Amino acid sequence: MSTTSTKPPSGTRDFLPEDVRRRDYVMRVVREVYESYGFEPIETPAYENIETLLGKYGEEGNKLIFKILKRGEHEASGEADLALRYDLTVPLARVVAQYQSELPRFFKRYQIQPVWRADRPAKGRFREFYQCDIDAMGSTSPVVEAELLGAVSEVLIRLGFNDFVIRLNHRKALSALLETAGVPEALQGDALTAIDKLDKIGAEGVGAELLTRGVSPAATKACLDFFTGITTEMPHVDSALQRLRTFVEKHHAGPGAVDELDTIVRLTDGGPGHGRIRIDPSLARGLSYYTGAIMEIAVPGLQGSMGGGGRYDTLVGMFLGRDVPAAGFSLGLERIILVMTERGMFPESVTRVPMDVMVTFLGDDLRSDALRLASELRAERLRVELFPDGSRKLDKSLKYASSRNVPMLVILGEDERARGEVTVRDLQTRQQQAAPRATAARDIARRIRIEAT
Amino acid sequence: MSTTSTKPPSGTRDFLPEDVRRRDYVMRVVREVYESYGFEPIETPAYENIETLLGKYGEEGNKLIFKILKRGEHEASGEADLALRYDLTVPLARVVAQYQSELPRFFKRYQIQPVWRADRPAKGRFREFYQCDIDAMGSTSPVVEAELLGAVSEVLIRLGFNDFVIRLNHRKALSALLETAGVPEALQGDALTAIDKLDKIGAEGVGAELLTRGVSPAATKACLDFFTGITTEMPHVDSALQRLRTFVEKHHAGPGAVDELDTIVRLTDGGPGHGRIRIDPSLARGLSYYTGAIMEIAVPGLQGSMGGGGRYDTLVGMFLGRDVPAAGFSLGLERIILVMTERGMFPESVTRVPMDVMVTFLGDDLRSDALRLASELRAERLRVELFPDGSRKLDKSLKYASSRNVPMLVILGEDERARGEVTVRDLQTRQQQAAPRATAARDIARRIRIEAT
Repeated sequence: MSTTSTKPPSGTRDFLPEDVRRRDYVMRVVREVYESYGFEPIETPAYENIETLLGKYGEEGNKLIFKILKRGEHEASGEADLALRYDLTVPLARVVAQYQSELPRFFKRYQIQPVWRADRPAKGRFREFYQCDIDAMGSTSPVVEAELLGAVSEVLIRLGFNDFVIRLNHRKALSALLETAGVPEALQGDALTAIDKLDKIGAEGVGAELLTRGVSPAATKACLDFFTGITTEMPHVDSALQRLRTFVEKHHAGPGAVDELDTIVRLTDGGPGHGRIRIDPSLARGLSYYTGAIMEIAVPGLQGSMGGGGRYDTLVGMFLGRDVPAAGFSLGLERIILVMTERGMFPESVTRVPMDVMVTFLGDDLRSDALRLASELRAERLRVELFPDGSRKLDKSLKYASSRNVPMLVILGEDERARGEVTVRDLQTRQQQAAPRATAARDIARRIRIEAT
Repeated sequence: MSTTSTKPPSGTRDFLPEDVRRRDYVMRVVREVYESYGFEPIETPAYENIETLLGKYGEEGNKLIFKILKRGEHEASGEADLALRYDLTVPLARVVAQYQSELPRFFKRYQIQPVWRADRPAKGRFREFYQCDIDAMGSTSPVVEAELLGAVSEVLIRLGFNDFVIRLNHRKALSALLETAGVPEALQGDALTAIDKLDKIGAEGVGAELLTRGVSPAATKACLDFFTGITTEMPHVDSALQRLRTFVEKHHAGPGAVDELDTIVRLTDGGPGHGRIRIDPSLARGLSYYTGAIMEIAVPGLQGSMGGGGRYDTLVGMFLGRDVPAAGFSLGLERIILVMTERGMFPESVTRVPMDVMVTFLGDDLRSDALRLASELRAERLRVELFPDGSRKLDKSLKYASSRNVPMLVILGEDERARGEVTVRDLQTRQQQAAPRATAARDIARRIRIEAT
């Protein structure tokens, strides 16, 4: 009859119960760790006024924003006044500007919500995806970056990851480096876009792209020499810092930026991020609002990053009119789940249907008592399924119980009722026994609790 | 500098930490109860293909749907191809049609997600709001309605509501009633819209509107006589059923519908909804997809309902081509929170900042050790705040600790370090004492656990 497609829109997904349980498990760990680091939850609307978002994510970002049509008589104009949230950072900056008098001067928040980007869907890349963000507003201390890296590292460790690497760089070191190599300021944005692809298209590809974008041959060579030297070797943090320091030592902002990186590395020692940091001067991060340290987390076998972040000391100022120092990190929920699924990292218990007992009845006359028994069992804090179409034939009930992996079935029948009893069947062993109806809920609850221990 | 407004868009809200904690508390109770009734979680995308939504909510509903502009080169067309989720029921029907082979034949799901409606904002009415839905697909048994009412009643009881009323009606009883009163089928939709306003605009208002909409004076009088008689008295369930039965007994579908209502009432006895049902033949429910029993929950002092639902046996058929019987109930999160806030029903513990201890340090040389101590404390499963701008002057740290209601402060200073100690200050009693640095984390954890018991 209808020809409406029943698939979810391109780049989005429906989550069936097992999917939701996996997602909830990861989000629960994320939330627990973030809270143990003192981050507090906030939530913002799914859409923002369109001008809040435009101009914050660079030219590429602007194109990927989902825009919402004006409503009512203005719908015909074809204009948009609202847009779906593109990340959680810009809304946070707006929130900090709006509620500054209510928030502590040093404010740490976490936020786990979906964002939407009209990107081309690919493996691990969706148009609707969840970000798990932590941000600290109001401090320039590198302790903030160390705590961010500690928190996200602890999340990954608790989820079972032991091979992740933190790539660390600094926006000011990066522009010192480009300037030193001879890339003029006007071309630095273009150059960053090219260099960001180093692990995807290789040194040759980056070199070609730099030349195409107007970078001089000498500057291109200087960049490539530096980057291939430092990244292909993946040297020890200290020697990478030293190499970077030597390269930018003449630049006015170079040594300061390298010092900051050095401090962040030192402060991460002894915490959960210990030993996982690699200095990666080719790391650029796409978003335009970063001003200081930038970082990304990678795991072997995953194209792209599992999360990233950095310091952005001027973004709040775009809303507030005065700057508020800030830094944050965003873990990508879908990437984490993708890798955990591929590697079989979910504990078996996560996807199990949380069901203790199912009640069924043999005929309509017993419906009321079945509902009452289900209530009594729930009052014992059990999770209880009630099969609504009970009939003299048990096969439907049994089939359903097995599809839900219910461990125990309670059957209410006429004969049992005449004897003041119910039948309790263990669906694993298929053994069954009679139990007095009057004390059935208490008896069953006791039995389940004993089995659980 | 910028003139961008920092307010959230009209009809939406930002949730600061205390708000989120209140919302999480309610959602946790909802989720626990829904799971104890055997409902399983699903989630669907925030937006659907626009044709999935159009035509499902009646003419009024179509106008309130947020539409998303096409992207890229098609953006200039001003056309929309996607639309924000308007409720959770239509997406569920799509999901059931799409994944029928993977889902059990009898499928119970819950879903707690936001929906968006371009309604005029008012008290308790937002453009972005959360629905907490349960639905059971695949059974025509009235046990389903009884379980739905049991589950939502138990949610409300657990949250502390003791004065809610369940209004129950039946779409087929309602049309039998209108037909018997002399309202022709073509005018019944209009008549329902008018009658639905009975508690808002009174009998006189409804009468005027019925006449305006073309209902004959005789039919209008018959309707009003019946409705004012039955609703103003709010009679006992049995006498209301009897009155309704007498009125529609000649209609082909009347007695059957009244029997169904009767059964649902009986089956609810002894469960959490016991004694809360009122038969209300004026209840119409706006959405067009209902086919059987319809219900709403009201509490004194709240304009409108706290939730509602009903049976919709043909909606899945719009996607699947064959009907799947279904019934559901949706609790409105914001309405629940509104009433709970007005009545002071939230436990005090809900909004407390979950923080055990804060670490601060007197000068940059101690940052590393502060980070290490924070890690050690977190390894003890404590929730730990670290003040990033520690300095010799303690006042900033103290001010921040007090803004977060932190109960205990650990201070790392040069003198303490020289002695191998830290200072532990109780921020309630303001007493402080020295503790050995080496065992500080364990000692503090033990102390906090003793205080908690």
